[in-house]
Amino acid sequence: MHTQSWRAIEAHFVRLRHDKRFEVLVIAIIICSALLVGANTYDLPAQLVTTLSVVDAAITTFFLLELTVRFLGDQNRLRFFYDGWNVFDTVIVVVSLLPIENSDLALVGRLIRIFRVLRMVSIVPELRMLVNSLISALPPLGYVALMMFIIFYIYAGFGATFFAEVNPDLWGNIAISMLTLFRVMTFEDWTDVMYETMETHPWSWVYFLSFIFLSAFAFLNMIIGIVVGTINDEQQLRRDLEEKIEKDTELSRLAEELRQIKTMLEQRDQG
Amino acid sequence: MHTQSWRAIEAHFVRLRHDKRFEVLVIAIIICSALLVGANTYDLPAQLVTTLSVVDAAITTFFLLELTVRFLGDQNRLRFFYDGWNVFDTVIVVVSLLPIENSDLALVGRLIRIFRVLRMVSIVPELRMLVNSLISALPPLGYVALMMFIIFYIYAGFGATFFAEVNPDLWGNIAISMLTLFRVMTFEDWTDVMYETMETHPWSWVYFLSFIFLSAFAFLNMIIGIVVGTINDEQQLRRDLEEKIEKDTELSRLAEELRQIKTMLEQRDQG
Amino acid sequence: MHTQSWRAIEAHFVRLRHDKRFEVLVIAIIICSALLVGANTYDLPAQLVTTLSVVDAAITTFFLLELTVRFLGDQNRLRFFYDGWNVFDTVIVVVSLLPIENSDLALVGRLIRIFRVLRMVSIVPELRMLVNSLISALPPLGYVALMMFIIFYIYAGFGATFFAEVNPDLWGNIAISMLTLFRVMTFEDWTDVMYETMETHPWSWVYFLSFIFLSAFAFLNMIIGIVVGTINDEQQLRRDLEEKIEKDTELSRLAEELRQIKTMLEQRDQG
Amino acid sequence: MHTQSWRAIEAHFVRLRHDKRFEVLVIAIIICSALLVGANTYDLPAQLVTTLSVVDAAITTFFLLELTVRFLGDQNRLRFFYDGWNVFDTVIVVVSLLPIENSDLALVGRLIRIFRVLRMVSIVPELRMLVNSLISALPPLGYVALMMFIIFYIYAGFGATFFAEVNPDLWGNIAISMLTLFRVMTFEDWTDVMYETMETHPWSWVYFLSFIFLSAFAFLNMIIGIVVGTINDEQQLRRDLEEKIEKDTELSRLAEELRQIKTMLEQRDQG
Repeated sequence: MHTQSWRAIEAHFVRLRHDKRFEVLVIAIIICSALLVGANTYDLPAQLVTTLSVVDAAITTFFLLELTVRFLGDQNRLRFFYDGWNVFDTVIVVVSLLPIENSDLALVGRLIRIFRVLRMVSIVPELRMLVNSLISALPPLGYVALMMFIIFYIYAGFGATFFAEVNPDLWGNIAISMLTLFRVMTFEDWTDVMYETMETHPWSWVYFLSFIFLSAFAFLNMIIGIVVGTINDEQQLRRDLEEKIEKDTELSRLAEELRQIKTMLEQRDQG
Repeated sequence: MHTQSWRAIEAHFVRLRHDKRFEVLVIAIIICSALLVGANTYDLPAQLVTTLSVVDAAITTFFLLELTVRFLGDQNRLRFFYDGWNVFDTVIVVVSLLPIENSDLALVGRLIRIFRVLRMVSIVPELRMLVNSLISALPPLGYVALMMFIIFYIYAGFGATFFAEVNPDLWGNIAISMLTLFRVMTFEDWTDVMYETMETHPWSWVYFLSFIFLSAFAFLNMIIGIVVGTINDEQQLRRDLEEKIEKDTELSRLAEELRQIKTMLEQRDQG
Repeated sequence: MHTQSWRAIEAHFVRLRHDKRFEVLVIAIIICSALLVGANTYDLPAQLVTTLSVVDAAITTFFLLELTVRFLGDQNRLRFFYDGWNVFDTVIVVVSLLPIENSDLALVGRLIRIFRVLRMVSIVPELRMLVNSLISALPPLGYVALMMFIIFYIYAGFGATFFAEVNPDLWGNIAISMLTLFRVMTFEDWTDVMYETMETHPWSWVYFLSFIFLSAFAFLNMIIGIVVGTINDEQQLRRDLEEKIEKDTELSRLAEELRQIKTMLEQRDQG
Repeated sequence: MHTQSWRAIEAHFVRLRHDKRFEVLVIAIIICSALLVGANTYDLPAQLVTTLSVVDAAITTFFLLELTVRFLGDQNRLRFFYDGWNVFDTVIVVVSLLPIENSDLALVGRLIRIFRVLRMVSIVPELRMLVNSLISALPPLGYVALMMFIIFYIYAGFGATFFAEVNPDLWGNIAISMLTLFRVMTFEDWTDVMYETMETHPWSWVYFLSFIFLSAFAFLNMIIGIVVGTINDEQQLRRDLEEKIEKDTELSRLAEELRQIKTMLEQRDQG
């Protein structure tokens, strides 16, 4: 009897989980939680702060309930945590529940509240697909990224070796030099950096210009690689689709006619 | 009799409306109105200002007449306001006519005069098509834009939480932080912003670099999405066209020949 | 007799004109003339200046001779000036010959010497083709350029109307405002401009952000338009080529077989 | 007997050279050498410096051994130096071995140590292919690069002629002017440069804007050229592949049927 009533409750959860209104409610609550994050960055009267902390507790409770519904409403409860998004949601909710009020960990609590906005991605299927597709676009960039890192590393090695005494804030060690080179790559006041080193090393413009050309060229090739890859993927998809459709047309009709002619000839041969 | 003379006038309006010379005149007047906007931003002698206000009144009158012609010359007068461009034109003309001279609303009057330049778009069909195609390119960007907003919001939440005491002008609240992040995304003196926060939070370069990489990557994917979409749309159009043409060629001739052969065979069977 | 010897000379010119070594010599002299332009921007000892002016006279003379050769060596002398590049070369050479030494026109003389470097483009066929293709890429951009000009004009009208008192150097009139907006579009210290106007008009960030989004979006569409156009043009060319080749293949062989079958059937009908 | 033992050693080298574990070891040592370069840019305690110099000597020795293995393990020892990467590796190792300790050449020693990081590219096949493909993307850019150089040169000629007295640091001679123009092209504080020249030459904004438009347009065409070229190359490859596959399908089956029909008809004619 208990099992049966449990089944009924379970079915209820499954229904609730796939209910469109439930999804809309969850999205609304996430937006509330995002607005809360925003509101907390303003100087607010003490009274409002108290209200907001109540709202915050309510949101945390709701997220806990919602996660429970989604967990219990999952057909395959064991595989629930195989999905990275579910793990992400659970971590967010669990850490929200921890009683962290002392100053050291208060930061973590704030961080978690900000990260709750990311739950939007885990709830809206279109965003989840977008993020998945963005992540799947990364691996082919691996070697170009490694190549750019090597370019950066070598130039930073040069920079830290020869320009360190010019301006230790920009070229003090290899890490700072890489940050400075990234700045140069974004063209952010890069001439200030260059004019400074050119005073003691008049030929250092070669260093900067060659770096800009090299990194821009490698970056460009990375972008072109993605563009071309995406275009070809999409065209492949479409062509496969078109091919399927085409099979039912003109050419197939020709084949049909030929078959008929052959049958006619064969019948006559027998006749 | 009245109806007949009305019909004659109406026909006259329709003719006028579709007259090429009328269109050229309207464009000329719009250019005048644009030059007027420009002229008013210079310090002009009082005499010229008076002349210009007369010209302005003349332009307003002309626009009223032109709108009347276009309204009366429309085959389907009830549907005139279904077209967004007609509504835009009407609002511009009507607001121009309102007697707003007191200092508070004088601003609105000036604004309307500037917006009149936009009438160029509503008159020149090529520009109207261009704007329509630009607007139709927006919806597919919806989710990427939402994604970027979420990235901005989360980073702004971080920024307003941790960097507010470093520089309230840049990180005072979540709205200001988002503006600062947009500035960082355009690479506009972003190192100044970073060096400032790095003094109190030495690891904040991770924040800035991860933001730049994330937003640039999302932005890049948005652009690639548009490029690929446009290329595929155009190629689809062209392929459809080619297919139509192809139907009259080689393959169809083959089918025709086959049909003839079949007929010959059938006739012989009967003969 | 005179005519005959003239013909011989003429034939000589034609040969000379199409001689590869002649072309290399001309390119070498143009490079000399470019180096001369560069050298004159340095502080040089008086002696060298004298030498350079002799070299300059020699180059001018050579250019005159070269132009004569090319004019006399042209099969169709009447059409010589139909080619824009020939007109350009002639103007450059003729103006070089004018005796302009007084300070006012000396500037023109210098300008002409700099423009002589452009002769490189008129001589090297690959560069001439490149420039021609760049120019032919412009017309389709016409309406997008007009659209962007309208966006700029309207925003500049706003800027000059509302921000003129904030900073007349940036927003004094509509022309200066357009220059400032171009600066904003290139992200060059645009936040400085915005922060300044935000002090008196706190909502002016809407103006700047909407402008950046609009102009970037229009610009992006312009680029995408060129990319897509170029890709499609190239693919069209290739497809046309492939189609020609394809006509000799599979499908044609099928058609040939069918024709043979039909002939066989017809012969039997007659037999 | 000696020859035989030598052959055995040689075979051992060949095996070692193609051993996956050997490759991993070499990559690990190169990473060590890169970390060493990085470490040396920090202020280190004297004791660590001594340790690092020992590590450096060990790396140099290892590289020497590794190069020997690769040389001896090469099937075709005479052609070893035909490969640019092998030459690069050899130069790096040989220069590392030279005893350069006096202050003048110490710089070269440091440089060589930084360049050793580049060995990563010569060892990892994927990076080597990437660099090769980047290099092969360069030649088609030749004429656009030359075109851009001409644009730069002419504008620099103008700049050095007319703006030299405004700011000799930016426009002193044609070389400095080209550097300044490159800065303008990257939009780096270009308005500061322009506002300065506009004080004495109010019309100089034409110079800057035309330069920005020209160089941006030429640059854009260069990028589009690469994109289109890459896309077409990839599509060509794919189409060739698809064509091969297609030959075994529908159309071929049609041809087969036709051949059968013809055979049937011929047999009947003979029968």
